[in-house]
Amino acid sequence: MQKSQINSNFEVIGFDADDTLWETETLFYEAQNKFNTIFKNHEANSGEELVKIEKQNLKYYGYGIKGFILSLIETSIKLSNNTSDNETINTFLNLGKKMLVEPVKILPNVKSTLKILSKDYKLILITKGDLLDQERKVNCSNISQFFNHIEIVSDKTTKTYTKILDKHKINPEKFVMVGNSLKSDILPVTEIGGFGIYIPFKLTWELEKVDYAAESTDFVQLDDISLIMPWLQINCEKL
Amino acid sequence: MQKSQINSNFEVIGFDADDTLWETETLFYEAQNKFNTIFKNHEANSGEELVKIEKQNLKYYGYGIKGFILSLIETSIKLSNNTSDNETINTFLNLGKKMLVEPVKILPNVKSTLKILSKDYKLILITKGDLLDQERKVNCSNISQFFNHIEIVSDKTTKTYTKILDKHKINPEKFVMVGNSLKSDILPVTEIGGFGIYIPFKLTWELEKVDYAAESTDFVQLDDISLIMPWLQINCEKL
Repeated sequence: MQKSQINSNFEVIGFDADDTLWETETLFYEAQNKFNTIFKNHEANSGEELVKIEKQNLKYYGYGIKGFILSLIETSIKLSNNTSDNETINTFLNLGKKMLVEPVKILPNVKSTLKILSKDYKLILITKGDLLDQERKVNCSNISQFFNHIEIVSDKTTKTYTKILDKHKINPEKFVMVGNSLKSDILPVTEIGGFGIYIPFKLTWELEKVDYAAESTDFVQLDDISLIMPWLQINCEKL
Repeated sequence: MQKSQINSNFEVIGFDADDTLWETETLFYEAQNKFNTIFKNHEANSGEELVKIEKQNLKYYGYGIKGFILSLIETSIKLSNNTSDNETINTFLNLGKKMLVEPVKILPNVKSTLKILSKDYKLILITKGDLLDQERKVNCSNISQFFNHIEIVSDKTTKTYTKILDKHKINPEKFVMVGNSLKSDILPVTEIGGFGIYIPFKLTWELEKVDYAAESTDFVQLDDISLIMPWLQINCEKL
Protein backbone atom coordinates (compact mmCIF):
# COMPACT_ATOMS: atom_id res chain seq x y z
CA MET A 1 0.00 0.00 0.00
CA GLN A 2 1.28 3.44 -0.86
CA LYS A 3 1.70 6.03 1.86
CA SER A 4 -0.56 8.39 -0.05
CA GLN A 5 -3.39 5.88 0.24
CA ILE A 6 -3.04 5.70 4.01
CA ASN A 7 -3.09 9.46 4.39
CA SER A 8 -2.38 9.11 8.08
CA ASN A 9 -1.76 11.99 10.41
CA PHE A 10 0.94 10.04 12.13
CA GLU A 11 4.51 9.92 10.94
CA VAL A 12 6.36 8.22 13.77
CA ILE A 13 5.40 5.18 15.85
CA GLY A 14 7.14 4.47 19.14
CA PHE A 15 7.16 0.93 20.51
CA ASP A 16 7.67 -0.20 24.05
CA ALA A 17 9.61 -3.48 24.12
CA ASP A 18 9.10 -5.53 27.34
CA ASP A 19 5.71 -7.30 27.04
CA THR A 20 4.87 -5.36 23.88
CA LEU A 21 7.43 -6.84 21.47
CA TRP A 22 8.86 -9.61 23.62
CA GLU A 23 7.81 -11.48 26.75
CA THR A 24 9.34 -10.27 30.02
CA GLU A 25 6.82 -10.15 32.83
CA THR A 26 6.44 -13.95 32.80
CA LEU A 27 10.08 -14.23 33.96
CA PHE A 28 9.46 -11.87 36.88
CA TYR A 29 6.19 -13.68 37.62
CA GLU A 30 7.92 -17.06 37.81
CA ALA A 31 10.64 -15.61 40.04
CA GLN A 32 8.03 -14.08 42.35
CA ASN A 33 6.23 -17.40 42.51
CA LYS A 34 9.44 -19.08 43.66
CA PHE A 35 9.87 -16.34 46.24
CA ASN A 36 6.27 -16.69 47.47
CA THR A 37 6.68 -20.47 47.76
CA ILE A 38 9.65 -19.97 50.10
CA PHE A 39 7.53 -17.71 52.31
CA LYS A 40 4.22 -19.53 51.90
CA ASN A 41 3.83 -20.24 55.62
CA HIS A 42 4.85 -16.77 56.65
CA GLU A 43 2.33 -14.55 58.42
CA ALA A 44 2.97 -11.50 56.19
CA ASN A 45 1.91 -11.46 52.56
CA SER A 46 5.30 -11.97 50.91
CA GLY A 47 4.13 -10.66 47.52
CA GLU A 48 2.87 -7.40 49.00
CA GLU A 49 6.01 -6.98 51.06
CA LEU A 50 8.17 -7.44 47.96
CA VAL A 51 6.20 -4.84 45.98
CA LYS A 52 6.54 -2.41 48.89
CA ILE A 53 10.30 -2.80 48.98
CA GLU A 54 10.62 -2.68 45.17
CA LYS A 55 8.72 0.61 45.22
CA GLN A 56 10.96 2.07 47.94
CA ASN A 57 14.03 0.98 46.01
CA LEU A 58 13.04 2.41 42.61
CA LYS A 59 14.83 5.67 43.40
CA TYR A 60 18.06 3.78 43.98
CA TYR A 61 17.94 0.94 41.48
CA GLY A 62 15.58 2.11 38.74
CA TYR A 63 14.00 -0.63 36.61
CA GLY A 64 15.43 -4.00 35.64
CA ILE A 65 16.52 -7.41 36.82
CA LYS A 66 19.53 -6.43 38.96
CA GLY A 67 17.43 -4.13 41.15
CA PHE A 68 14.70 -6.77 41.33
CA ILE A 69 17.15 -9.36 42.70
CA LEU A 70 18.57 -6.89 45.24
CA SER A 71 14.98 -6.19 46.38
CA LEU A 72 14.21 -9.93 46.59
CA ILE A 73 17.23 -10.40 48.87
CA GLU A 74 16.28 -7.40 51.03
CA THR A 75 12.67 -8.59 51.38
CA SER A 76 13.80 -12.10 52.20
CA ILE A 77 16.03 -10.82 55.01
CA LYS A 78 13.23 -8.62 56.34
CA LEU A 79 10.50 -11.30 56.22
CA SER A 80 12.73 -13.86 57.90
CA ASN A 81 13.74 -11.46 60.68
CA ASN A 82 17.39 -11.68 59.67
CA THR A 83 17.42 -15.47 59.43
CA SER A 84 17.36 -15.94 55.67
CA ASP A 85 19.80 -18.74 54.91
CA ASN A 86 22.58 -18.43 52.33
CA GLU A 87 21.02 -21.13 50.18
CA THR A 88 17.91 -18.98 49.72
CA ILE A 89 19.94 -15.89 48.87
CA ASN A 90 22.01 -17.91 46.41
CA THR A 91 18.77 -19.11 44.81
CA PHE A 92 17.85 -15.48 44.13
CA LEU A 93 21.32 -14.65 42.76
CA ASN A 94 21.13 -17.63 40.37
CA LEU A 95 17.57 -16.76 39.41
CA GLY A 96 18.75 -13.28 38.40
CA LYS A 97 21.58 -14.64 36.27
CA LYS A 98 19.18 -17.05 34.59
CA MET A 99 16.77 -14.18 33.81
CA LEU A 100 19.65 -12.13 32.41
CA VAL A 101 20.53 -14.75 29.79
CA GLU A 102 17.03 -16.05 29.06
CA PRO A 103 16.42 -16.31 25.29
CA VAL A 104 14.28 -13.49 23.93
CA LYS A 105 10.72 -14.62 23.20
CA ILE A 106 9.25 -12.36 20.51
CA LEU A 107 5.46 -12.09 20.85
CA PRO A 108 3.16 -13.31 18.03
CA ASN A 109 2.70 -11.07 14.96
CA VAL A 110 5.42 -8.65 16.06
CA LYS A 111 7.88 -9.20 13.23
CA SER A 112 5.28 -9.09 10.43
CA THR A 113 3.66 -5.98 11.91
CA LEU A 114 6.95 -4.10 12.26
CA LYS A 115 7.88 -5.08 8.71
CA ILE A 116 4.64 -3.62 7.32
CA LEU A 117 4.66 -0.47 9.48
CA SER A 118 8.31 0.30 8.78
CA LYS A 119 7.45 0.86 5.13
CA ASP A 120 5.16 3.80 5.88
CA TYR A 121 6.31 5.11 9.25
CA LYS A 122 9.48 5.97 11.10
CA LEU A 123 9.72 3.51 14.02
CA ILE A 124 11.41 4.13 17.37
CA LEU A 125 11.96 1.53 20.06
CA ILE A 126 11.71 3.06 23.55
CA THR A 127 12.46 0.67 26.38
CA LYS A 128 13.44 0.96 30.05
CA GLY A 129 15.48 -1.36 32.27
CA ASP A 130 19.09 -2.45 32.75
CA LEU A 131 21.18 -1.11 29.87
CA LEU A 132 23.15 -4.29 29.12
CA ASP A 133 20.07 -6.52 29.40
CA GLN A 134 18.00 -4.31 27.09
CA GLU A 135 20.86 -4.12 24.57
CA ARG A 136 21.14 -7.91 24.64
CA LYS A 137 17.43 -8.28 24.00
CA VAL A 138 17.50 -5.73 21.16
CA ASN A 139 20.46 -7.54 19.57
CA CYS A 140 18.98 -11.03 19.99
CA SER A 141 15.48 -10.07 18.88
CA ASN A 142 16.33 -9.79 15.17
CA ILE A 143 13.90 -6.90 14.83
CA SER A 144 16.25 -3.95 15.32
CA GLN A 145 16.51 -3.42 11.55
CA PHE A 146 12.93 -2.12 11.52
CA PHE A 147 13.72 0.77 13.85
CA ASN A 148 15.13 4.16 12.90
CA HIS A 149 16.17 4.81 16.48
CA ILE A 150 16.57 2.73 19.63
CA GLU A 151 16.28 4.53 22.95
CA ILE A 152 17.08 2.77 26.22
CA VAL A 153 15.89 4.99 29.07
CA SER A 154 15.89 4.83 32.85
CA ASP A 155 12.22 5.83 33.19
CA LYS A 156 9.28 6.76 30.97
CA THR A 157 7.85 10.09 32.03
CA THR A 158 6.54 13.08 30.06
CA LYS A 159 10.08 14.48 30.37
CA THR A 160 11.57 11.34 28.80
CA TYR A 161 9.21 11.46 25.83
CA THR A 162 9.64 15.21 25.35
CA LYS A 163 13.41 14.75 25.29
CA ILE A 164 13.23 11.93 22.72
CA LEU A 165 10.78 13.77 20.46
CA ASP A 166 12.85 16.97 20.66
CA LYS A 167 16.04 15.08 19.89
CA HIS A 168 14.57 13.57 16.74
CA LYS A 169 12.60 16.70 15.83
CA ILE A 170 9.23 14.94 16.00
CA ASN A 171 5.98 16.87 16.42
CA PRO A 172 4.02 15.14 19.26
CA GLU A 173 0.86 15.34 17.13
CA LYS A 174 2.55 13.14 14.55
CA PHE A 175 3.62 10.61 17.18
CA VAL A 176 1.83 7.50 18.37
CA MET A 177 3.21 5.26 21.13
CA VAL A 178 2.38 1.55 21.35
CA GLY A 179 2.74 -0.29 24.64
CA ASN A 180 1.31 -2.52 27.34
CA SER A 181 1.59 -0.07 30.22
CA LEU A 182 -0.91 2.77 30.59
CA LYS A 183 1.37 4.32 33.20
CA SER A 184 4.63 4.28 31.21
CA ASP A 185 3.71 4.01 27.54
CA ILE A 186 0.36 5.72 27.10
CA LEU A 187 -0.51 8.41 29.67
CA PRO A 188 2.79 10.37 29.58
CA VAL A 189 2.59 10.42 25.77
CA THR A 190 -1.01 11.62 25.63
CA GLU A 191 -0.11 14.26 28.21
CA ILE A 192 2.40 15.87 25.84
CA GLY A 193 0.03 15.77 22.87
CA GLY A 194 0.79 12.39 21.34
CA PHE A 195 -1.54 9.46 20.74
CA GLY A 196 -1.43 6.04 22.43
CA ILE A 197 -2.17 2.51 21.29
CA TYR A 198 -2.59 0.43 24.41
CA ILE A 199 -2.16 -3.33 23.96
CA PRO A 200 -2.42 -5.01 27.39
CA PHE A 201 -0.28 -8.06 28.14
CA LYS A 202 -1.68 -10.99 30.13
CA LEU A 203 0.35 -9.93 33.17
CA THR A 204 0.98 -6.44 34.58
CA TRP A 205 3.61 -5.71 37.21
CA GLU A 206 2.08 -4.16 40.34
CA LEU A 207 4.16 -0.98 39.98
CA GLU A 208 2.90 -0.42 36.41
CA LYS A 209 -0.76 -0.56 37.46
CA VAL A 210 -2.75 2.69 37.49
CA ASP A 211 -6.33 3.50 38.30
CA TYR A 212 -7.52 4.85 35.02
CA ALA A 213 -11.15 4.43 34.13
CA ALA A 214 -11.78 7.61 32.17
CA GLU A 215 -12.70 7.34 28.54
CA SER A 216 -10.18 9.04 26.34
CA THR A 217 -9.94 10.09 22.75
CA ASP A 218 -6.16 10.27 23.12
CA PHE A 219 -5.59 6.54 23.06
CA VAL A 220 -7.18 3.37 21.84
CA GLN A 221 -7.00 -0.18 23.20
CA LEU A 222 -6.28 -3.00 20.77
CA ASP A 223 -6.14 -6.73 21.45
CA ASP A 224 -3.19 -7.54 19.26
CA ILE A 225 -0.24 -5.81 17.62
CA SER A 226 -1.39 -7.05 14.19
CA LEU A 227 -4.43 -4.75 14.50
CA ILE A 228 -2.33 -1.55 14.44
CA MET A 229 -2.08 -1.28 10.64
CA PRO A 230 -5.82 -1.91 9.99
CA TRP A 231 -6.66 0.53 12.78
CA LEU A 232 -4.40 3.23 11.32
CA GLN A 233 -5.94 2.73 7.89
CA ILE A 234 -9.54 2.96 9.13
CA ASN A 235 -9.04 5.80 11.58
CA CYS A 236 -6.53 8.02 9.95
CA GLU A 237 -9.09 10.42 8.58
CA LYS A 238 -11.21 10.57 11.71
CA LEU A 239 -8.42 11.81 13.95
CA MET B 1 41.35 32.48 21.58
CA GLN B 2 40.05 32.10 18.05
CA LYS B 3 39.73 28.65 16.52
CA SER B 4 41.86 29.76 13.58
CA GLN B 5 44.75 30.41 15.95
CA ILE B 6 44.60 26.89 17.36
CA ASN B 7 44.55 25.29 13.93
CA SER B 8 44.07 21.87 15.50
CA ASN B 9 43.47 18.70 13.53
CA PHE B 10 40.94 17.62 16.09
CA GLU B 11 37.32 18.66 15.98
CA VAL B 12 35.66 16.50 18.60
CA ILE B 13 36.80 15.59 22.11
CA GLY B 14 35.24 12.66 23.95
CA PHE B 15 35.39 12.56 27.74
CA ASP B 16 35.10 9.57 30.01
CA ALA B 17 33.25 10.54 33.22
CA ASP B 18 33.98 8.22 36.20
CA ASP B 19 37.40 9.21 37.60
CA THR B 20 38.05 11.57 34.69
CA LEU B 21 35.41 14.24 35.40
CA TRP B 22 34.17 13.09 38.79
CA GLU B 23 35.44 10.79 41.54
CA THR B 24 34.03 7.26 41.57
CA GLU B 25 36.66 4.65 42.28
CA THR B 26 37.17 5.96 45.82
CA LEU B 27 33.59 4.85 46.63
CA PHE B 28 34.26 1.33 45.36
CA TYR B 29 37.61 1.33 47.16
CA GLU B 30 36.00 2.24 50.47
CA ALA B 31 33.33 -0.43 49.99
CA GLN B 32 35.99 -3.04 49.21
CA ASN B 33 37.91 -2.02 52.31
CA LYS B 34 34.81 -2.63 54.42
CA PHE B 35 34.40 -6.00 52.72
CA ASN B 36 38.06 -6.92 53.30
CA THR B 37 37.77 -5.95 56.97
CA ILE B 38 34.91 -8.42 57.42
CA PHE B 39 37.04 -11.20 55.93
CA LYS B 40 40.39 -10.07 57.35
CA ASN B 41 40.96 -13.34 59.24
CA HIS B 42 39.89 -15.51 56.37
CA GLU B 43 42.43 -17.84 54.77
CA ALA B 44 41.60 -16.79 51.18
CA ASN B 45 42.47 -13.33 49.87
CA SER B 46 39.03 -11.73 49.95
CA GLY B 47 40.00 -8.92 47.54
CA GLU B 48 41.24 -11.38 44.91
CA GLU B 49 38.17 -13.57 45.32
CA LEU B 50 35.90 -10.55 44.83
CA VAL B 51 37.69 -9.49 41.62
CA LYS B 52 37.42 -13.07 40.31
CA ILE B 53 33.66 -13.14 40.89
CA GLU B 54 33.17 -9.59 39.52
CA LYS B 55 34.98 -10.68 36.36
CA GLN B 56 32.81 -13.80 35.99
CA ASN B 57 29.68 -11.72 36.51
CA LEU B 58 30.48 -8.96 33.99
CA LYS B 59 28.63 -10.86 31.26
CA TYR B 60 25.49 -10.87 33.41
CA TYR B 61 25.60 -7.56 35.22
CA GLY B 62 27.78 -5.31 33.09
CA TYR B 63 29.35 -2.33 34.89
CA GLY B 64 27.98 -0.34 37.80
CA ILE B 65 27.06 -0.33 41.45
CA LYS B 66 24.11 -2.78 41.38
CA GLY B 67 26.23 -5.54 39.85
CA PHE B 68 29.05 -4.73 42.28
CA ILE B 69 26.75 -5.24 45.28
CA LEU B 70 25.37 -8.50 43.86
CA SER B 71 28.97 -9.69 43.42
CA LEU B 72 29.86 -8.60 46.99
CA ILE B 73 26.96 -10.70 48.32
CA GLU B 74 27.92 -13.71 46.18
CA THR B 75 31.58 -13.52 47.25
CA SER B 76 30.58 -13.17 50.88
CA ILE B 77 28.46 -16.32 50.70
CA LYS B 78 31.25 -18.21 48.95
CA LEU B 79 34.05 -17.12 51.31
CA SER B 80 31.98 -17.92 54.39
CA ASN B 81 31.02 -21.37 53.11
CA ASN B 82 27.33 -20.46 53.15
CA THR B 83 27.42 -18.98 56.64
CA SER B 84 27.32 -15.28 55.82
CA ASP B 85 24.94 -13.69 58.32
CA ASN B 86 22.04 -11.46 57.29
CA GLU B 87 23.59 -8.48 59.05
CA THR B 88 26.61 -8.67 56.73
CA ILE B 89 24.44 -8.95 53.62
CA ASN B 90 22.33 -6.02 54.80
CA THR B 91 25.54 -4.02 55.26
CA PHE B 92 26.31 -4.56 51.57
CA LEU B 93 22.75 -3.65 50.48
CA ASN B 94 22.93 -0.41 52.47
CA LEU B 95 26.43 0.32 51.17
CA GLY B 96 25.08 0.06 47.60
CA LYS B 97 22.21 2.45 48.31
CA LYS B 98 24.61 4.90 49.91
CA MET B 99 26.89 4.75 46.86
CA LEU B 100 23.89 5.31 44.57
CA VAL B 101 22.98 8.63 46.22
CA GLU B 102 26.48 9.84 47.03
CA PRO B 103 26.93 13.50 46.01
CA VAL B 104 28.91 13.90 42.80
CA LYS B 105 32.46 15.09 43.44
CA ILE B 106 33.74 16.92 40.37
CA LEU B 107 37.52 16.63 40.05
CA PRO B 108 39.71 19.77 40.17
CA ASN B 109 39.98 21.93 37.01
CA VAL B 110 37.22 20.01 35.22
CA LYS B 111 34.66 22.77 34.90
CA SER B 112 37.13 25.46 33.75
CA THR B 113 38.71 23.07 31.23
CA LEU B 114 35.37 22.02 29.74
CA LYS B 115 34.32 25.65 29.51
CA ILE B 116 37.44 26.57 27.54
CA LEU B 117 37.42 23.50 25.30
CA SER B 118 33.71 23.77 24.49
CA LYS B 119 34.38 27.07 22.71
CA ASP B 120 36.60 25.44 20.10
CA TYR B 121 35.58 21.80 20.04
CA LYS B 122 32.48 19.66 19.98
CA LEU B 123 32.47 17.72 23.27
CA ILE B 124 30.92 14.28 23.89
CA LEU B 125 30.58 12.62 27.26
CA ILE B 126 30.93 8.83 26.97
CA THR B 127 30.37 6.92 30.19
CA LYS B 128 29.57 3.35 31.19
CA GLY B 129 27.70 1.96 34.20
CA ASP B 130 24.16 1.75 35.55
CA LEU B 131 21.90 3.95 33.42
CA LEU B 132 19.99 5.66 36.26
CA ASP B 133 23.15 6.24 38.30
CA GLN B 134 25.04 7.75 35.37
CA GLU B 135 22.07 9.96 34.48
CA ARG B 136 21.91 11.15 38.08
CA LYS B 137 25.60 12.01 38.07
CA VAL B 138 25.31 13.82 34.73
CA ASN B 139 22.36 15.85 36.03
CA CYS B 140 23.96 16.65 39.39
CA SER B 141 27.37 17.49 37.96
CA ASN B 142 26.33 20.86 36.48
CA ILE B 143 28.66 20.29 33.55
CA SER B 144 26.23 18.77 31.03
CA GLN B 145 25.79 22.14 29.30
CA PHE B 146 29.32 21.85 27.91
CA PHE B 147 28.54 18.66 25.99
CA ASN B 148 26.98 18.38 22.55
CA HIS B 149 26.09 14.74 23.18
CA ILE B 150 25.90 12.47 26.19
CA GLU B 151 26.29 8.74 25.58
CA ILE B 152 25.71 6.22 28.38
CA VAL B 153 26.95 2.84 27.16
CA SER B 154 27.12 -0.69 28.57
CA ASP B 155 30.78 -1.19 27.57
CA LYS B 156 33.59 0.68 25.83
CA THR B 157 34.96 -1.39 22.99
CA THR B 158 36.09 -0.50 19.46
CA LYS B 159 32.52 -1.37 18.40
CA THR B 160 31.05 1.11 20.91
CA TYR B 161 33.26 3.96 19.71
CA THR B 162 32.71 3.14 16.03
CA LYS B 163 28.95 3.22 16.60
CA ILE B 164 29.08 6.59 18.39
CA LEU B 165 31.38 8.18 15.81
CA ASP B 166 29.24 6.85 12.94
CA LYS B 167 26.07 8.11 14.61
CA HIS B 168 27.43 11.63 14.92
CA LYS B 169 29.26 11.50 11.58
CA ILE B 170 32.69 12.05 13.14
CA ASN B 171 35.88 11.11 11.33
CA PRO B 172 38.04 9.09 13.81
CA GLU B 173 41.08 11.12 12.75
CA LYS B 174 39.37 14.24 14.05
CA PHE B 175 38.48 12.58 17.36
CA VAL B 176 40.41 12.56 20.61
CA MET B 177 39.23 10.67 23.68
CA VAL B 178 40.18 11.72 27.22
CA GLY B 179 40.02 9.20 30.06
CA ASN B 180 41.65 7.47 33.01
CA SER B 181 41.44 3.92 31.66
CA LEU B 182 43.86 2.72 29.00
CA LYS B 183 41.66 -0.34 28.51
CA SER B 184 38.31 1.43 28.05
CA ASP B 185 39.07 5.02 27.04
CA ILE B 186 42.35 4.98 25.13
CA LEU B 187 43.26 1.68 23.40
CA PRO B 188 39.88 1.00 21.68
CA VAL B 189 39.90 4.58 20.35
CA THR B 190 43.46 4.43 19.02
CA GLU B 191 42.60 1.07 17.43
CA ILE B 192 39.94 2.70 15.24
CA GLY B 193 42.17 5.61 14.23
CA GLY B 194 41.44 8.15 16.93
CA PHE B 195 43.82 9.78 19.40
CA GLY B 196 43.89 9.32 23.18
CA ILE B 197 44.70 11.60 26.09
CA TYR B 198 45.34 9.37 29.08
CA ILE B 199 44.98 11.03 32.49
CA PRO B 200 45.48 8.39 35.20
CA PHE B 201 43.47 8.61 38.43
CA LYS B 202 45.06 7.76 41.78
CA LEU B 203 43.12 4.46 41.88
CA THR B 204 42.46 1.96 39.10
CA TRP B 205 39.92 -0.86 39.40
CA GLU B 206 41.54 -4.28 38.90
CA LEU B 207 39.35 -5.06 35.89
CA GLU B 208 40.43 -1.85 34.13
CA LYS B 209 44.13 -2.65 34.43
CA VAL B 210 46.02 -3.69 31.30
CA ASP B 211 49.62 -4.61 30.64
CA TYR B 212 50.63 -1.92 28.22
CA ALA B 213 54.20 -0.83 28.17
CA ALA B 214 54.64 -0.04 24.48
CA GLU B 215 55.41 3.51 23.46
CA SER B 216 52.73 4.92 21.25
CA THR B 217 52.29 7.96 19.08
CA ASP B 218 48.52 7.42 19.21
CA PHE B 219 48.07 8.69 22.73
CA VAL B 220 49.69 10.96 25.23
CA GLN B 221 49.70 10.88 29.03
CA LEU B 222 48.94 14.08 30.91
CA ASP B 223 48.96 14.67 34.67
CA ASP B 224 45.91 16.90 34.83
CA ILE B 225 42.85 17.77 32.79
CA SER B 226 43.88 21.46 32.76
CA LEU B 227 46.85 20.49 30.57
CA ILE B 228 44.66 19.42 27.63
CA MET B 229 44.24 22.89 26.12
CA PRO B 230 47.95 23.85 26.33
CA TRP B 231 48.84 20.44 24.91
CA LEU B 232 46.44 20.84 22.00
CA GLN B 233 47.82 24.30 21.27
CA ILE B 234 51.45 23.17 21.30
CA ASN B 235 50.97 19.91 19.44
CA CYS B 236 48.32 20.62 16.90
CA GLU B 237 50.72 21.21 14.07
CA LYS B 238 53.00 18.28 14.84
CA LEU B 239 50.30 15.61 14.53
